[in-house]
Formats: sequence, C-alpha cells, structure tokens
Amino acid sequence: MPAEVELLVMEMGRKARAASRLLAGLTTVQRNAALLAMADALESARTEILAANALDVAAAEAAPLSRAAIDRLRLDENRLSAMASAIRDVARLPDPVGEILSERERPNGLKIAKVRTPIGVVGIIYESRPNVTADAAVLCVKTGNAVLLRGGSESFQSNKAIAAALRDGCSRAGLPADAVQLVSVTDRAAVRALAQMDEFLDVIVPRGGHALIRAVVEHARMPVIKHYHGLCIVYVHDPCDIPMAARIAVNSKCQRPGVCNAMETLLVHQNVAADFFQAAQEGFVAHAVEMRADARAARLLTDAGYPLVTAAREEDWTTEFLERILAVKIVDSLTEAVGHINSFGSHHSDAIVTTDAAAAEAFLAAVDSAAVYWNASTRFTDGGEFGFGAEIGISTDKLPARGPMGLEELTTYKYIVRGTGQIRE
Amino acid sequence: MPAEVELLVMEMGRKARAASRLLAGLTTVQRNAALLAMADALESARTEILAANALDVAAAEAAPLSRAAIDRLRLDENRLSAMASAIRDVARLPDPVGEILSERERPNGLKIAKVRTPIGVVGIIYESRPNVTADAAVLCVKTGNAVLLRGGSESFQSNKAIAAALRDGCSRAGLPADAVQLVSVTDRAAVRALAQMDEFLDVIVPRGGHALIRAVVEHARMPVIKHYHGLCIVYVHDPCDIPMAARIAVNSKCQRPGVCNAMETLLVHQNVAADFFQAAQEGFVAHAVEMRADARAARLLTDAGYPLVTAAREEDWTTEFLERILAVKIVDSLTEAVGHINSFGSHHSDAIVTTDAAAAEAFLAAVDSAAVYWNASTRFTDGGEFGFGAEIGISTDKLPARGPMGLEELTTYKYIVRGTGQIRE
Repeated sequence: MPAEVELLVMEMGRKARAASRLLAGLTTVQRNAALLAMADALESARTEILAANALDVAAAEAAPLSRAAIDRLRLDENRLSAMASAIRDVARLPDPVGEILSERERPNGLKIAKVRTPIGVVGIIYESRPNVTADAAVLCVKTGNAVLLRGGSESFQSNKAIAAALRDGCSRAGLPADAVQLVSVTDRAAVRALAQMDEFLDVIVPRGGHALIRAVVEHARMPVIKHYHGLCIVYVHDPCDIPMAARIAVNSKCQRPGVCNAMETLLVHQNVAADFFQAAQEGFVAHAVEMRADARAARLLTDAGYPLVTAAREEDWTTEFLERILAVKIVDSLTEAVGHINSFGSHHSDAIVTTDAAAAEAFLAAVDSAAVYWNASTRFTDGGEFGFGAEIGISTDKLPARGPMGLEELTTYKYIVRGTGQIRE
Repeated sequence: MPAEVELLVMEMGRKARAASRLLAGLTTVQRNAALLAMADALESARTEILAANALDVAAAEAAPLSRAAIDRLRLDENRLSAMASAIRDVARLPDPVGEILSERERPNGLKIAKVRTPIGVVGIIYESRPNVTADAAVLCVKTGNAVLLRGGSESFQSNKAIAAALRDGCSRAGLPADAVQLVSVTDRAAVRALAQMDEFLDVIVPRGGHALIRAVVEHARMPVIKHYHGLCIVYVHDPCDIPMAARIAVNSKCQRPGVCNAMETLLVHQNVAADFFQAAQEGFVAHAVEMRADARAARLLTDAGYPLVTAAREEDWTTEFLERILAVKIVDSLTEAVGHINSFGSHHSDAIVTTDAAAAEAFLAAVDSAAVYWNASTRFTDGGEFGFGAEIGISTDKLPARGPMGLEELTTYKYIVRGTGQIRE
C-alpha cells in the first residue's frame, strides 16, 4: 500500500482518537446542541453543497452511471432540508450513552454497574450516497464517537462539502471538528489502511458490494460489522390466508427489488400452492417478475397463467438477484422450509405466512436470521421501520450487532465498580 | 497450511454447525439436564481422566515446565470433583437464551421483540489448563452453542479424556456429541484453519500470549474476542484514606502478580505520596516488589526505606510485568492521572482510591476501561467475582463483549416480528 496513504489515514486516526476522548466527556445536552449546530451549518452551506453535488452529478452523467445511481447521488433543496431535519430528529432521540444496563451488589459490598459508553472511533466505508455522510456522522456524534468516513468516489465532492459543513457545526458548538473526518483518498489503499489501523479505530462498518466487504474482512484487525445484501425468503404455509400471503409475497419481492430486505426465494406448501399462485398472479405479473421454479412449481405457475417461468438451476437458490427475478420452490412441510432457509438463506430477514400460531412460533424459533416475520413483509427490516429513528446500516453478522443498527449499536459498555476498600483474599 | 489440517477442521466445523442447529431448538430444561449428565460423566470417567493427566504431567516434568505451569496442569480427585460441581452450579444459573431484551409495537401494528439467541458455533483457543476444557464446553452448551475447543499441547491427553467424557454426557442426555469437539491438532496450522473458517464458526476466543492472539487477529474472518493480559493502573488521589490506599495497592499488585487484573503501574498524587509510601512499605517489601520509579517517586521511596528502587525507563510505563515489579509515578492532578491511564494503560481494569466522591465520579467517567474501580482492588475483575457464576474469559476488546464474559456474552439476539398482514407502502 502506498506509504503516503497509510500515513494520511494514521494521522486522521490519531486526531479521531483525541477527539473521541473529548466527545466521551460531553453531556447529552452538549452532544445534542452540536447536532443542532450541524443541522444549521448544513443549511447555511446549501450553496456550496449543491455546487459540489452538481460536479459529482455532471461526472456521473458523463461516465455514464445508471439513472438510479445518479438519482441516489443527486441533491436538491428539498433533499438538503430533509437531511437537516433528519439531524434534528436524531437530536430529539433518547441518548443511550450513560444508560445503566444492570446493577448488582456483591456479598462483599462491591456495587457493580454496567453502563453504556461510546465505542470510541468508528470507521464507515459506504457507497455513493451523500446522505450517508450526514447520517453516519450525526449518529456517531450523538453517541459520543468520533467517525472516519470513507465514501465512494462518485460522491466525493458532495461528501467533502457536507463533511466541511458538519465539521463547522461541531466547531461552533465547541466540539473538536475532528469528531468528523472524511478520508480524501477514495481508492482501495485507504480501505486497507483503515482496516489495519487497530490502534486508532475501534470498529469498521463496510457497506457495499461483496468485493469491498471481503477486502475489509481479509485485512481488518478490529471488529467488522458487515452490511451485506440479503437473500430473504418468504414461506407460505398451509393453512394460511391466501390473499394475505399473496399481498406479502408480492410486496416483499416487488416494492423495491434492489434492496437487501427484498425477497429472493419463495417457498410454498404443496397444499396451498395452486390457490396461492392464482391469488398472487396479478401482482407478480404486473411487476413482470421472472419465476425460476422447481418442476412442481413450474407446472402450477404455468397453469396459473404466469408468462415468465423458467426451470430453476441449482445456483438460483443461492443467488441474490436484486432484480425482478424470483426462485420458487414447492415444499412438503414446515421442517423442509426451515431447513431450506437455514441452509440457503443469508440469515437476514425471512417470513412465514400462516394462520397456524403453533407453526408460526416453531418457525420464528427455528429460523436463524436477524429478523424473522410472521404475517408481514420482509421489507420492514430497517432502522426507521423498527422505530430506531435512524440507522447506520443493517448488520448481516451475528456479532457485535445484528440486524438494523441504530444508536444503541454504536455503544459499548463498561463496568463501574464502587467499593469501600475491598481487597481480594 | 497443511491441507489435511484444513480438511479436518472443516469437517469438525460442519458437524458443529449441524449440532448447533439441534442445540438451538432445545428447551432450558433439556440443556440443563445435559449439563448434569456431563457432570456425572466426568465423575464416571475419573480413572481415565486421571490416567491421561498423569501422562501430561510426566511429559511436563520431563520437559521441564515451571512448577507453576505443572501445578495448573495437574488434576486430582479433588480438582475433578470441583470441576463436576462447577458444572452443576452452571446448570443452576438462569438461562439467558430466550430472554426478551426489548419489545415495541409500531404504529402499523407490527410487534417487534428483540430476543436473546445462541450465537451458533464458538471456537476457543486456550492455554494448557484442563479445567478450561470443561468450563468452556459447559458454558457453550448451557447457552445452546456448539463449541470447538483447541487447548494447548501440554494438556492434550487430559483435554482428550475430559472432552470424551463431556461428549458422552451429551449423548446420554440425547444431545449430539458434536456439541463438544476437541481439535486434535495442537500446532498453529489448526489455529489458522479455525480462524479462516467463517462458514462454520461464528466467533473465536483466543486466550493466551500475544503471538497467538496476533496470529488469530491476522487471519480471522469472524469476530474475535481477545483475552489479552492487562496493564492495570491504580491511582492514589488526594484526599484519600491512606491505610485503605495502601491495602488496595498492595493487594492489586501482590495477591497474584501473574494475572491480567494485577496492577502494573501505580500513580500517586504528590500531596499524599510520602504518607502513602510509608503506609504501603510493609506490604510491598514483604512481597519483595521491585519499584521502577520516576525521579520524584524514587526519592520518596528511598526515604521510606524501600530496598528495591530503580529508575523507571520509558518502556516500564507500557510493560505488563506479570511479576513482582511495579512502575511508580508521582502525578500532580487527577487530569494527569486519567491522561496517563488512557494513554498507557490497556483499558482492562483501573482504580482510583480517594475520599472525594466528585473526583471519583470524574475518574470513573473519564477512564476508558472495561472495569473502573473506586476504592477497591483491580483484582476483582473476573466472572466469579462479578457474580456471573462462570466465565469464558475476560475480553480486552470493546466489541462484541467487554470485560468478564459469562453466559450472556455467549448469546446474540434476533428480532421476532409478528404481524397481521402488514406490507410496506
């Protein structure tokens, strides 16, 4: 790795560590005041941010990037106002730092309290969405953490302008500006330098494609919280409310097919398959979903008038299509469905649709995923929908966080022990 | 790495994953029954275990290992009974699995419960202490996890006999024997194979020297919970109860100098230094502690009649002596003490001794360590002393666990979402 990138990132890490010590000593009121100052600064820097964003958008159009990618990149007055208003919402959320998680008194009189604390320095590597720059910075400052942001190159000018405004807000509120730092190197060397800097970085959150996440995991010397895509599965059990099952399946697949909590595989109990496929036909066909079906499902789907039915190949059961393609399989039992989900799913979000409460509870207990649903769409797995107010990502790991990550997931804890002179005999 | 080691470890991982699926489906009663069967099996295999242990001890004496190491290795009737009885104690502890950590109902009627679940498969790499084989296996089975044990070579025969008994207990209770597996390869190739096997291993806990932990961190593709030594610091503030300060300092250093929660550096406020050194003289001298002191401390220590005083070198402030050597420094303020601890300590266990409650609370808030003490010895940082009933180690990381790790730290969680047909608009 180029030595200058390593030195640059190390220097940022050193500053972040120093800033984190100061942040950890602030009160809730001080941290929330900083958030409000950051929101104000973002609005004051409106002209600069939109000008910087116009450069990114022009480059993306020349590249050219896809229309969807350019749309995610583009900022306007409304989106900037929404960013500022989201920051003010986070300021109003309860502060997890300082929360007493448990308290116990030992027979020798020692009083042991387990108390939530900031983690220290958080590193986030993310795709080209300028709003993540603000979201991540604000969640970290709220929880008393310093943050190192490394956004995608396509949104670099926007990120730089946003980070400058946020740093300005920190300074005005009396916080160190280095609470928020944007890594100015957007190539892979910076990713590797961050991943190896365990002295100054306490956790790293890669959001993005498999290659990026694999690179971070290979090199990281600190905890990694992976934000992978998901291979989510909906299982339609017998008995079930067929129209409900159809609504949930179509919503899970079609409402936004390119995201991690969209359905990729559909399992249907043989007893209800014909009726279910009939009921869901209109919805799936309206969204032009291609069905990659096992032999039994293919027959029933064709009978039900689905136009796009092909034979599923082995790899379809392990593919995150992230588009209007669905793997479909008939199963003979709940046990078979659970076995398939635990073996082929990605342990992200999986659902059962049934009117049988005992079967539902067995499914909820047995499926080893971050979120398991009974009679609801898998699309609800995110911080906002879960009521966390904000999220820094959705963890596809089991540790140190699982599922949507809000403010609590940006904290650790320490044990505070108060004694009266106890020594160990 | 030798391919056969990799294949062997992979095959164990595959079996552990399958066993973990069955374990996760068991009730509290079933898992506790298995623990009691494991305790019985350990007692039934008394003869085989002691015979195997005799082989390890004979090899250790021939090597020769230190007397302390041989003592840690040696089993007898009493120690085996204590192991069995410790297992029965763990069976009586509350079951964290299934605990509802939080519940919320969303405006759309979705009910979201955050519920503790097993992690899955836990890997533990540990030093040559046969009792860890039983402790780790039992804590994992209690929490519904399968475990891969990789103990040190010096205790291999003992570990093999203990693991065989524990597996036998699992089988008798109707659990898969592969809930508990001992890796039969004791060289570093097995460590690397474990660390890279993220498909079948969800977390890895290395306990041991720096070289081992560094090797695991370099290769690991799953979360690592490091169990390092500690550089613990006691700060004697002005004002304080001088006899109490002396008792706590001597206990923190001398009660068991070779362990991770023993004091390595002592900071003393200048105003109380002369009196404190006087009061602590008898205790430190009785234990023949060598003082590596800064210039001011050296003068006062010599005046107080300490026989073993040398000038501290720069590296003494960052050294975990793990023996009867102590770095000693005079400070001028609480702020200086906190700065020293956060910069030079290992964030394990640090203490302040003072009668000033405000100063104590400032210290407890500002010191960024797993355990922070006011008026008590640092030696209390362990699972037993914290009232966890048992521990799998003491984490020197901030994530995913921090400080002593008991049963709760062997769990993760999932979100169970119960709906009535909700879809995302």
